[in-house]
Amino acid sequence: MSVTFAQGFSASGVVAGISAVEGKKDMAVVVNDGPLDVAAGVFTANRFCAAPVQWSRKAVADGHIKAVVLNSGCANACTGEAGYRQSADTAAKLAGLLNVADADIAVCSTGMIGDLLPLDNVLSGVELAHNALSSSSEAGELAAEAILTTDTKKKTVALEGAGYRIGGMVKGSGMIAPQLATMLCVITTDAKVSAEQARKALSAGVETSFNRIDVDGCMSTNDTVLLLASGASGVEPDEDEFDAMVAKACASLSRQIIGDGEGASHDIRVTVTGATSEDAALACARAVAASNLLKCAVCGNDPNWGRVVSSLGTVPADVAPYDPNNVTVDVNGVRVCDGGKPGRPRSEVDMTPREVHFDIDLGEGDNQATVWTDDLTHEYVHINADYES
Amino acid sequence: MSVTFAQGFSASGVVAGISAVEGKKDMAVVVNDGPLDVAAGVFTANRFCAAPVQWSRKAVADGHIKAVVLNSGCANACTGEAGYRQSADTAAKLAGLLNVADADIAVCSTGMIGDLLPLDNVLSGVELAHNALSSSSEAGELAAEAILTTDTKKKTVALEGAGYRIGGMVKGSGMIAPQLATMLCVITTDAKVSAEQARKALSAGVETSFNRIDVDGCMSTNDTVLLLASGASGVEPDEDEFDAMVAKACASLSRQIIGDGEGASHDIRVTVTGATSEDAALACARAVAASNLLKCAVCGNDPNWGRVVSSLGTVPADVAPYDPNNVTVDVNGVRVCDGGKPGRPRSEVDMTPREVHFDIDLGEGDNQATVWTDDLTHEYVHINADYES
Repeated sequence: MSVTFAQGFSASGVVAGISAVEGKKDMAVVVNDGPLDVAAGVFTANRFCAAPVQWSRKAVADGHIKAVVLNSGCANACTGEAGYRQSADTAAKLAGLLNVADADIAVCSTGMIGDLLPLDNVLSGVELAHNALSSSSEAGELAAEAILTTDTKKKTVALEGAGYRIGGMVKGSGMIAPQLATMLCVITTDAKVSAEQARKALSAGVETSFNRIDVDGCMSTNDTVLLLASGASGVEPDEDEFDAMVAKACASLSRQIIGDGEGASHDIRVTVTGATSEDAALACARAVAASNLLKCAVCGNDPNWGRVVSSLGTVPADVAPYDPNNVTVDVNGVRVCDGGKPGRPRSEVDMTPREVHFDIDLGEGDNQATVWTDDLTHEYVHINADYES
Repeated sequence: MSVTFAQGFSASGVVAGISAVEGKKDMAVVVNDGPLDVAAGVFTANRFCAAPVQWSRKAVADGHIKAVVLNSGCANACTGEAGYRQSADTAAKLAGLLNVADADIAVCSTGMIGDLLPLDNVLSGVELAHNALSSSSEAGELAAEAILTTDTKKKTVALEGAGYRIGGMVKGSGMIAPQLATMLCVITTDAKVSAEQARKALSAGVETSFNRIDVDGCMSTNDTVLLLASGASGVEPDEDEFDAMVAKACASLSRQIIGDGEGASHDIRVTVTGATSEDAALACARAVAASNLLKCAVCGNDPNWGRVVSSLGTVPADVAPYDPNNVTVDVNGVRVCDGGKPGRPRSEVDMTPREVHFDIDLGEGDNQATVWTDDLTHEYVHINADYES
């Protein structure tokens, strides 16, 4: 269903000849057909942010965007002034075809860092993609396919709000870490919302979803999440309900990224409860989710709680106060660590399901946080030792 | 040569029956035969620090230790009061044989977290090890062998100071990260130094060596570095020269840990220059050295500077001020990134040597720092997915 599930949007996905993989769809366009052209964006915090991020951050600053061009196969990152001009030229090309201002077009790129785009192919691709625009659900699916790189499956969402719809697509599989996973994401809605409402809903939604997944601890140069609102449903949603729906869309898409983590054989949920604050719980959950040793243990179906507590023990006491002697760790529902000491035998834990749950209680307070990650497998190393584009 | 290279020390390495590997040497004893019994220690910062760390931290607090018992095969970590009593009993056993106070014995354990020691085997092993004590270089080698776990080779050092000697041994291969790698280390010297001199030299030496290596970002519960001084040479060393020699011993041993990193096929040196402070340089070097994506790229012989700058870009500007447009990255001497943009072709870089050098210049100041790490390989995943003891 993807981005065209919401009314007032058309999309396309085409082969532009950017990817090194012959015949791979590598360009998507999403157009907001109105009546509104409200937009909000959240971008990577990386200081080496890519040219398209620099461009799009400015474009979305006024809360309005007419369309987005996205390409896979080349990140156009660390490409200096020349790269920035390429993003500008890409935007200008689509702006001309849609008869809007260049600054109404956002641009997203993903792929290898340090290479310029093959600009001729990009510009002819924009024309192709413009000609292919359609509001059909199939067009939305093609767009979701065109943004993939090492992803093995399309990741989309389609939700019904109270009288309005939310659609979305995302790509992301490796170089995934807070803040923001390495990902490009476009969420669309036909709700009638203001730019401020869109900004608020997106920021809050991203905070508890994309900012709480971690495939490999590596932050990208190109992360972008855009929310586009067409108002085509004519419905002005209740603000809290709209926030919740956007958060739900973000949660679904970010969970799908974990489900497609590079080489992953398990999806790992780390939930920390009993913390003195949400920040304390989050710091502990992030530390555990970032442990290569734990991620390898899960790959080997080993409920190795020693690697949980040794990670937990690296969080400074002023960040997360707790007494090691009060900590419990449940793995898939079995309390293998009780009061900082061995609990039930590890042999009682069934590690065969795709989802593995680590539930850690600090025994100090009432706050909690959850972070999702993947296991670390031979396949992850293979993909990232040999990835070239 | 190991710990018996310095005069005034005897050592042994025996099979005590602690390790799950039949016939593996798993217990070492190092005795300071005097005339001095000066000692200093540095321990893990992990809040879940193991029972032997809790014991030894107290034992060494007064600057004096007569002997150390070390075992592999079981970490005695997260074992509560019972585990602490086991460390105390182990110390008491050796203290009785040597006719010294229990508090003059340090205890170190490494292996699986969450299991108690097989105490009968430990106590009979201490007796065996005591009977086998010798000041021969062979005895030092046996001790260095007995502390290994997933290590594939012994790691020792032997240095000649001005009239005195320094010897040492270390174990460590995985769960290696600052602060302190997962490691047990005993350094011996026959120099005549005070407890304060020993403490100062060891702290400074550890800071620029063991605290600057990172195999997998995982901090252990059991890290211990001990420096024992017998004074047997009768030489009171120049303080600066002694500091330098201890630092050199620490550097050699920590470099050997990287050379034996779990599954590693490359040793990676990350040096950051041109920083406004040493802390800024260190934060940048640590961020780059911790990147799983970069470590995989090196495994695949790919001089992927995009993964260098994307890691660099995660360091906050207030921690390390720099302008991305002034950053250069040399890989094995080839400037592949120049001013934040592509420089020389990546094909010019020879990635076949075991050592790979990333030299990053921030272009802001005169300070620098170096961190060593390993590449991330299939073999690392294999070792850590299937490790049980």
